[in-house]
Amino acid sequence: MGDRGGAGGSRRRRTGSRPSIQGGSRPAAAEEEVRDVGAGGDAPVRDTDKDGDVDVGSGHWDLRCHRLQDSLFSSDSGFSNYRGILNWCVVMLILSNARLFLENLIKYGILVDPIQVVSLFLKDPYSWPALCLVIVANIFAVAAFQVEKRLAVGALTEQAGLLLHGVNLATILCFPAAVAFLLESITPVGSVLALMVYTILFLKLFSYRDVNLWCRERRAGAKAKAALAGKKANGGAAQRTVSYPDNLTYRDLYYFLFAPTLCYELNFPRSPRIRKRFLLRRGLAGQGGRLFLTQLQVGLIQQWMVPAIQNSMKPFKPSGWGRVGAGGAVPNHLIWLIFFYWLFHSCLNAVAELMQFGDREFYRDWWNSESITYFWQNWNIPVHKWCLRHFYKPMLRRGSSKWAARTGVFLASAFFHEYLVSIPLRMFRLWAFTGMMAQIPLAWIVGRFFRGNYGNAAVWLSLIIGQPVAVLMYVHDYYVLNREAPTAGT
Amino acid sequence: MGDRGGAGGSRRRRTGSRPSIQGGSRPAAAEEEVRDVGAGGDAPVRDTDKDGDVDVGSGHWDLRCHRLQDSLFSSDSGFSNYRGILNWCVVMLILSNARLFLENLIKYGILVDPIQVVSLFLKDPYSWPALCLVIVANIFAVAAFQVEKRLAVGALTEQAGLLLHGVNLATILCFPAAVAFLLESITPVGSVLALMVYTILFLKLFSYRDVNLWCRERRAGAKAKAALAGKKANGGAAQRTVSYPDNLTYRDLYYFLFAPTLCYELNFPRSPRIRKRFLLRRGLAGQGGRLFLTQLQVGLIQQWMVPAIQNSMKPFKPSGWGRVGAGGAVPNHLIWLIFFYWLFHSCLNAVAELMQFGDREFYRDWWNSESITYFWQNWNIPVHKWCLRHFYKPMLRRGSSKWAARTGVFLASAFFHEYLVSIPLRMFRLWAFTGMMAQIPLAWIVGRFFRGNYGNAAVWLSLIIGQPVAVLMYVHDYYVLNREAPTAGT
Repeated sequence: MGDRGGAGGSRRRRTGSRPSIQGGSRPAAAEEEVRDVGAGGDAPVRDTDKDGDVDVGSGHWDLRCHRLQDSLFSSDSGFSNYRGILNWCVVMLILSNARLFLENLIKYGILVDPIQVVSLFLKDPYSWPALCLVIVANIFAVAAFQVEKRLAVGALTEQAGLLLHGVNLATILCFPAAVAFLLESITPVGSVLALMVYTILFLKLFSYRDVNLWCRERRAGAKAKAALAGKKANGGAAQRTVSYPDNLTYRDLYYFLFAPTLCYELNFPRSPRIRKRFLLRRGLAGQGGRLFLTQLQVGLIQQWMVPAIQNSMKPFKPSGWGRVGAGGAVPNHLIWLIFFYWLFHSCLNAVAELMQFGDREFYRDWWNSESITYFWQNWNIPVHKWCLRHFYKPMLRRGSSKWAARTGVFLASAFFHEYLVSIPLRMFRLWAFTGMMAQIPLAWIVGRFFRGNYGNAAVWLSLIIGQPVAVLMYVHDYYVLNREAPTAGT
Repeated sequence: MGDRGGAGGSRRRRTGSRPSIQGGSRPAAAEEEVRDVGAGGDAPVRDTDKDGDVDVGSGHWDLRCHRLQDSLFSSDSGFSNYRGILNWCVVMLILSNARLFLENLIKYGILVDPIQVVSLFLKDPYSWPALCLVIVANIFAVAAFQVEKRLAVGALTEQAGLLLHGVNLATILCFPAAVAFLLESITPVGSVLALMVYTILFLKLFSYRDVNLWCRERRAGAKAKAALAGKKANGGAAQRTVSYPDNLTYRDLYYFLFAPTLCYELNFPRSPRIRKRFLLRRGLAGQGGRLFLTQLQVGLIQQWMVPAIQNSMKPFKPSGWGRVGAGGAVPNHLIWLIFFYWLFHSCLNAVAELMQFGDREFYRDWWNSESITYFWQNWNIPVHKWCLRHFYKPMLRRGSSKWAARTGVFLASAFFHEYLVSIPLRMFRLWAFTGMMAQIPLAWIVGRFFRGNYGNAAVWLSLIIGQPVAVLMYVHDYYVLNREAPTAGT
């Protein structure tokens, strides 16, 4: 009888009931109370888990076995642990593609054909334009580094530095675009990859320049202060950290260029060691994901999207486009989800582990986002962090309104989306640009009319419907232009 | 510069970093520290949310923007809020069935045909055997009540009460089974529903008898104690609660019979009022769910399962059965999931709200279950609670081992599953019984070899694969026996 209160306590962890009032001191009175506690809902109940310590001997009458509580799905319950649903999705995805996989394997053999993969990158096996472009990118990085080196020692004025950096950055964007546009032997896939590398380089060097500039400004400020008050307060705190001019080394620059972030920092947080098991798991997940992704992509494209696009080739009919939406949207969305997991979780984590890069926040919980804004702020943290640090906040500092700064961010993002799609495909349709810019009114509408789970559903819907529509626009146009089966470039 | 520490704090809520050490008291020193704090990972970072208070004027150099942290998908991060994934599943389910729904609507008109639904229940519109059976069930409830009434005042001995209750309970199980088995005019669906009502009545009256017996035992004990020590300690605590013999009223009995629980209690926790909005929402969800379920069921059965079963009619081939698994398992699983939501969340909550029944825990987070045992303990709380209170614990008290008690629970559960399937279909194949009993070795295997997310995936897999196999066994056999399209009875 005495451990009645204790038994009630073992479920308190989850349901958060108040501790029961009776201890084990007065058995008779406690027993009486148990019967008399009314509908208050905080009467002690037995632990209903089967494992372990069911108190058999003591107090064997389970007279009370209900308590005032909400169902878990009710929003009042505040319960939000649905980790299992994630596993369910993975199991369902694998299961529903297992048959397809087996059938394809039997019918066509292994579809992951290295020759075919290579042919996506190369038309002429003796010239590797995309790879050459990527190698050439080093020149721009070195150029930026040399400018910074001279700026640090004062060999260049700030104005000259700004000019040189501006020319360098502009070239980074224009040079590969011109090459990709003019060179016939480059394939769309190779072109996209090369342009992506250059875009990342652009963002990284922009950040590199900004941070070094801030360091110089701060050094100037600190010197002025040090002249006023001669003491410094950093006793033992300066443990192996790099301060401004010492960071300008090739080693530091290339660490930053390969690190999974777009924001430069003098002292990146570092993980203590390379966890081999972690790397293996991420690596396997990456490999498995890539294989699975390839298979899924091929399967989905073959089975769903090609018929959908062929349907859409017929003169514009609403039903035809309905089919495109239904047939193309879901597989496209699935591909995007798997791609997200593969790139943002597996790949970036594996790279970070290899480089002992400590900050693994490559995404936040965008799947819970209840507004479009929250989604864009959380699905791609490296880019979001860059935009915030080097675009949004500097604009605010220069006196822009928040609205203008936000629109500016979306404009920049829209530009880069268009840049990465139009140039490789050699078509200027502005679908990607429009799609990105449409996010601003969309965000307003969703934020205005939807809340909570409905807002979340609206975000999902805009993802499932919106993104594939833009992709299919390009695929459709490319297909029409080239009159052949689209390559998996977009 | 002064609110640097504060800005770092605004994200602490989620990532749980330690509070930063510097306040706003010594601006110069604090600034120095910010630069000098090493790779410790708890340096203050800016709030990266775009909304609200970006501190534009103060300290405009974001020199540090990374921190030591894990990705959310990593198990180390401890993050488990995937509520959005649940919404994703709902959106995907609706989307992927919307086209099917529209096409079916255009092709066949509204499929929710009341005549057809009625024909599931009735062969002969002038005799309603299932409904009659349900009405007759009242007799048994009244019989149990009368026995208790006499036991309370001592007009019956405990032995006679036990005997009468035993006869009553045995009749509750045998009488409808005999009727359903022998009466030709009853349909399988009507028969299943009637047997379900009787099974629930059996469990409820079993609990009713047990609790009243415990109350009598306690009354005897309390009297003995009261004779020893004359004082009672329940001053103002007895607020409107019912104690033993007063609970024996028809009102109380019928409240219990309609309440969404199987465990009798003298004083159920009551919710303060009927929330009309809640009821409306659950009611709508229930109605919507039912409509959607019907549509989905019809669609899934038409499109996936019938071809799968027809394939399985061909002489046993592994590939044929593979198709059954792939074609039948997923829609069957989806139907089960929607059915679960509809019954356990919508219906039971609506009933509970109407009856002001306070305990809404009809299910726990079985979707996160990492072992088969956890799943069975948490997906159906009313039944689990009953088994624990009236079967498992009494067995333990009588000295059974835990293993024997657990096996006993599974045996009883297997019996009732078989009872509810075999009699309406008039086939005794023991698939359901075997399926339930197979859970014991399965639980051992899963518990032995799988942990964490892998265990969860194994549970899902056993649900997605296992349950439909049993269902399809019956459907297949019924189909073979009756040489016609199966009704949606199982």
